[in-house]
Amino acid sequence: MNRFAKCLANYVPLTPLTFIKRASMVYPTRTSIIYDRVQFNWRQTYERCCRLADSLRSLHVVKNDVVSVLAPNVPALYEMHFAVPMAGAVLNAINTRLDAKHVASILRHSEAKVLFVDYEFVPLASEGLRLLVADNLEDKACGRIHRPLVVVIDDISNPTGVRLGNLEYEQLVDDGNPNYCGEDLEDEWDAIALNYTSGTTSEPKGVVYSHRGAFLSTMSLIQGWELCTEAVYLWSLPMFHCNGWTFPWGVAARGGTNVCIRNTTANEMYTSISKHNVTHMCCAPVVFNILLEAKQHERCEITSKVNVLTGGAPPPAPLLEKMEDMGFNITHAYGLTEATGPALVCEWQSKWNLLARDDQSRLKARQGVSILTLADVDVKNKKTMKGVPHDGKTMGEIVLRGSSIMKGYFKDDKETANAFQNGWFFTGDVGVIHPDGYIEIKDRSKDVIISGGENISSVELESVLFKHHAILEAAVVAMPHPRWGESPCAFLVLRETSDATEAEILAYCQKNIPKFMVPKKVVFVKELPKTGTGKIQKQVLRKLAKSLQNSCTKDKTS
Amino acid sequence: MNRFAKCLANYVPLTPLTFIKRASMVYPTRTSIIYDRVQFNWRQTYERCCRLADSLRSLHVVKNDVVSVLAPNVPALYEMHFAVPMAGAVLNAINTRLDAKHVASILRHSEAKVLFVDYEFVPLASEGLRLLVADNLEDKACGRIHRPLVVVIDDISNPTGVRLGNLEYEQLVDDGNPNYCGEDLEDEWDAIALNYTSGTTSEPKGVVYSHRGAFLSTMSLIQGWELCTEAVYLWSLPMFHCNGWTFPWGVAARGGTNVCIRNTTANEMYTSISKHNVTHMCCAPVVFNILLEAKQHERCEITSKVNVLTGGAPPPAPLLEKMEDMGFNITHAYGLTEATGPALVCEWQSKWNLLARDDQSRLKARQGVSILTLADVDVKNKKTMKGVPHDGKTMGEIVLRGSSIMKGYFKDDKETANAFQNGWFFTGDVGVIHPDGYIEIKDRSKDVIISGGENISSVELESVLFKHHAILEAAVVAMPHPRWGESPCAFLVLRETSDATEAEILAYCQKNIPKFMVPKKVVFVKELPKTGTGKIQKQVLRKLAKSLQNSCTKDKTS
Repeated sequence: MNRFAKCLANYVPLTPLTFIKRASMVYPTRTSIIYDRVQFNWRQTYERCCRLADSLRSLHVVKNDVVSVLAPNVPALYEMHFAVPMAGAVLNAINTRLDAKHVASILRHSEAKVLFVDYEFVPLASEGLRLLVADNLEDKACGRIHRPLVVVIDDISNPTGVRLGNLEYEQLVDDGNPNYCGEDLEDEWDAIALNYTSGTTSEPKGVVYSHRGAFLSTMSLIQGWELCTEAVYLWSLPMFHCNGWTFPWGVAARGGTNVCIRNTTANEMYTSISKHNVTHMCCAPVVFNILLEAKQHERCEITSKVNVLTGGAPPPAPLLEKMEDMGFNITHAYGLTEATGPALVCEWQSKWNLLARDDQSRLKARQGVSILTLADVDVKNKKTMKGVPHDGKTMGEIVLRGSSIMKGYFKDDKETANAFQNGWFFTGDVGVIHPDGYIEIKDRSKDVIISGGENISSVELESVLFKHHAILEAAVVAMPHPRWGESPCAFLVLRETSDATEAEILAYCQKNIPKFMVPKKVVFVKELPKTGTGKIQKQVLRKLAKSLQNSCTKDKTS
Repeated sequence: MNRFAKCLANYVPLTPLTFIKRASMVYPTRTSIIYDRVQFNWRQTYERCCRLADSLRSLHVVKNDVVSVLAPNVPALYEMHFAVPMAGAVLNAINTRLDAKHVASILRHSEAKVLFVDYEFVPLASEGLRLLVADNLEDKACGRIHRPLVVVIDDISNPTGVRLGNLEYEQLVDDGNPNYCGEDLEDEWDAIALNYTSGTTSEPKGVVYSHRGAFLSTMSLIQGWELCTEAVYLWSLPMFHCNGWTFPWGVAARGGTNVCIRNTTANEMYTSISKHNVTHMCCAPVVFNILLEAKQHERCEITSKVNVLTGGAPPPAPLLEKMEDMGFNITHAYGLTEATGPALVCEWQSKWNLLARDDQSRLKARQGVSILTLADVDVKNKKTMKGVPHDGKTMGEIVLRGSSIMKGYFKDDKETANAFQNGWFFTGDVGVIHPDGYIEIKDRSKDVIISGGENISSVELESVLFKHHAILEAAVVAMPHPRWGESPCAFLVLRETSDATEAEILAYCQKNIPKFMVPKKVVFVKELPKTGTGKIQKQVLRKLAKSLQNSCTKDKTS
C-alpha cells in the first residue's frame, strides 16, 4: 500500500503560484486588475509576473533572499505576491504606517536584498535607509552593510516624478523574459513570505510562511467565506496585513477581479464599489466608521450586495447593523499573523435568520469556527492543558494546530519555541467555547484584568461601553489596586457632540454590568495611542493607568 | 529561512478525517444523515465512526489492511469512509453491480481482511466468497487462503433478517469505544482508499488514493462546485464510484446533511428532494432519464433549486434543457478513478447567461477547467509531448499533474509506470482546448475512428445521433474498412414508440455531418452492452462490428 514512489505527476508541492498559472490558462481574457485607468487581464498579469520574476533573477536575487516592499494596494504589490516567490525569493511587505526607525529595523533584521518603494513612500524609505546605514556603521559587530537595492514603483498618479536610484518597476517588468516560468519549487515547506507583527507589546517579530501554509490558508479562506468565481474584490485591506489575508492568491484562484485603490478614503471605496460592482471586500471594523461617517457627496449608491470579511477586532453591534442596512453582508473572522490571517470564521447559520437583530449581532460578533485546513482548534487551561467545557463561560487560551500556521519567527528560536508548546500554537488570546462549538474571544491573555480573584475581560467591558451613545472609542486596562490587586480603568474618546460626564458613564456601567466589573477610573482622552496597524497600544495605557492610580474614582467598596 | 523544524503545531498531515472531527465540534447538533426513519447529527456520526474504528482494531485490523464493502448508499457505507481510515486501514468500496466472479477477483487481489456486506448483497457476497475459496484451493502458487472476515450490514428495511456469519454492523458500532480517536496518521502519503476501475477494456485495476490526495480533491471539489455550508446532499451517486467523487468527506467538511437512499428510483429521488429540500446531488447523465421519464405518480413537486454535478459522459443538450426546465441547475465535470473523481469542472461564466439556449448547452457539455488542487492540465501530442494550440480543433491526449492524482495501481508496477510518463498522468482521453481555455473531450484515445487519415470522434458522432428524436441511446465504434482503414459503425437503441429506419437515420446524418463521418453501417439493438458501472463496452461492439463488416450500408464512396 505504501511502497508507491512519489512522482512528478502525483506529488506536486502545494503553492499558491499554481493559481496564477491556472488563471492565465482558464481565465485568460477576464479582467484581473483594475486600478484607476490601468486594467489587465489574467494572461497579462501572469506574463507581467513572469517578466518581473525574471528581472529579479537578473538582479541576482536567489532562493530564500528577502525582497521587501513599501507600497499601498497598487498593482505592483499585487504582482509581487507572485513574482517574488516565482523567483524563489521571500516577499516581505512592510506596513507603510511604520516610521523610518521601524522600517530600518525590519530591513536590518530581514537582510532584504531588494527594496521596492512606491513613489509616495520614497521619503520614508530614504530615511529608513539612512538609519540602516548609520546603524550599520555604528554596529562594530557587523561585518558588512546590508543595504538593499532600491526599485521605485512609479505610478500614473505620481505628480512629482520622484526617484530613488536608477531602477524602476515598470522597466523591470519590460526587461524581463515573458517565457520565464519561475524557479522549480522542490519543497512546499520552503518560505514564501515574511511578515513583521505590529508588536503591541514587544519588538516586531518576523513571521515566516511556507508555500504549503499559504496554499492551504488560501484554499480554506475562499471556502470559509464562500468567495465565488468571478468575484470583484475591492482592496480595502492592506496587502501588508498577513499578505492581505491570503486574498492576493485567493482572487487569482477564483479568476476574480482585483480592484486596487491607493487610499481607503470613503470616496475611493464608494466610487469603486459602485463603478465596478464590487462583490467582496475585507477590512477592520474601523473602516466601517469611514464608510458610515462619509459625507453625502463622498457617497455613491450601492445597488448590489457587498460581502465584507472583517477582523482584527470584534465588530460592535451598532456598526454591524448600520453597515447591513446599507447593503453590506458582514462575516466576522479572527486570526493573527502567525496563522496566515484568519483562523476562525463566524459561519452564519440559516436558523439565525429568525432571531432578533440584537441576537444576530451578538452571534456575529463571536469569532466562530475553525477554517477547514486547521487540523484542530481548542480553548485550553494553559496549566492543565485540558480543553475548557463548551459552556460559553469558562475561559482559557485559544490554541491552534495545522499546516496553515507559520513556520516560525525568523532568527528567533526562543520566541518560536515559546509559541509552539505541546503540539499547539498559543495565540495569547483568551476565549470561551459556546455550546454550539463557536469560540468567542474574551481578551488578549495579557489584557485580562484580575480583580479580587475575578477575571474581567477588557473586551467585554469595552463592548458595553461602546453601546453608550456618547462613546466613540473605548479601551479598558488593568490599574494596580491596593485591595483588589487590579481594577479596570477605562480610557474613552467621546463623540464630538457629546458632553457626557464621568458620573454619567459610571451610572450607565452600574446599570449594565456586574459591580466588580465597573471601572474604578474613567479617563477622557482626545485619541487612543495606536500602533501602525491601528491596534490600541494597551501597554501605553497601562503605564498611564499606573500613574493615575491614586486619583481613583470614588468607590464605596474600595 | 528554511532551517525551521516542522512541529506538531504547524505541520499536520492532510487528511479528510479532520473534517469529521471538526464537524462534531462545530456542527454538533446539525443533522448529518437522514435515511428512511434513521437520523443522526454530526456529534453522533463522529461517535459512531470512532466506535466502529475501535471495533475494527479489535478485529485485528491494522495499518494498511484492506477493508472491503458491498453496499448501496446506506449510512454504514458513509460511516466507513471515516471509520476504516481512522483504524489505519484502507477502504475498498466494491461496485455492487459486478458479478460474483469480479467480486471474488477483487477480494483476492486486494487481500481484503474484512468484508462488510449489506443484507441485499449477501447472495452476491456468498457466491463471491465461494469462488474465492475455490480459486485459492486451485491456485497451487497460493500459500494461504485470504478469506476475509464477514460483517453483515442489517437494515430497518431488511424483510428477511438474512445473515452471513456472526458479525453484524450495528453490534460492532455498539461494542466500540466512543472515546477512541483513531490511529495517528504520520504520513499524508499513506493510503486511504482502494477503488477498482470498471475496466472497459482490460482487467480491473486497483487505484490507490492517499490521505493527501483525498483531502485535496475534497477541498477543490467543494470549491469548484461551490458546495455551500448547510448543503442538503442527496446520495444519487454510488459511494463506490471514486468514493462518491469525494463527497462523503466533502459533506462533512461543509456541515451538510447526507440524504441516503437505497435505490436511485425516480420515486425515491423525487420524494427525498421534496421532503428534505435537497440542494445538491451528483449523478451520471443516465439518471436524468430516470427523472425525466418518471410517471406522474412517482413525481413530487420540486420547489427549490437543486444543483446537480454530472459526469461520466457529456450530458446531451436535450436532456440538459429538460432537466433545467424542471428546476435542476446542472454543472458538468470530467474525471476518472485515477484522479479521485472529477479533475475538470465546466465552470459557468456569467456572460454565457446572455447566450441562446443551444449555445449554453454546447458550452456546458464541455469538460471545462482544472480543479484548484491540480497543479497543471494540458492536452498533448503524445509523440512530441507538446501542448496543442488553443484552437478548439487540434486533438491530443488529456494529461494531468497534481497531488490529487492516485498513488498508483495496487500490485501493478507495469500499469503504474505506463500511466505516469514524463511527469504527467495520461488519461487515455482525447480532447481539444478551446480559445477560452476550456477543454472538451473528443473521445477515448482507443475509441477514435481513423478513416482515410481523418480522425473521427465517436463522441461527436454520438451526440449528433442523440439529437434525432427517435434515438434513445447511441454508440459508434470503428469497423474495419477495406478502403478507408476504419469506418464508423453506429449501434442504436430506438425509443419504444419509434419505427425509424436505417435509411432515415442515414439521411439525417448526411444532412447534419460531414460525409466522411457518416456511419457506413447502422445496427438497431434492444440494448447496448454495459459494464457494472453503466459504461458502454465498446470493445464488445467493436468485435460485433468486425463480424458485420461485409454487410456494410450501401455507400457510393466506399
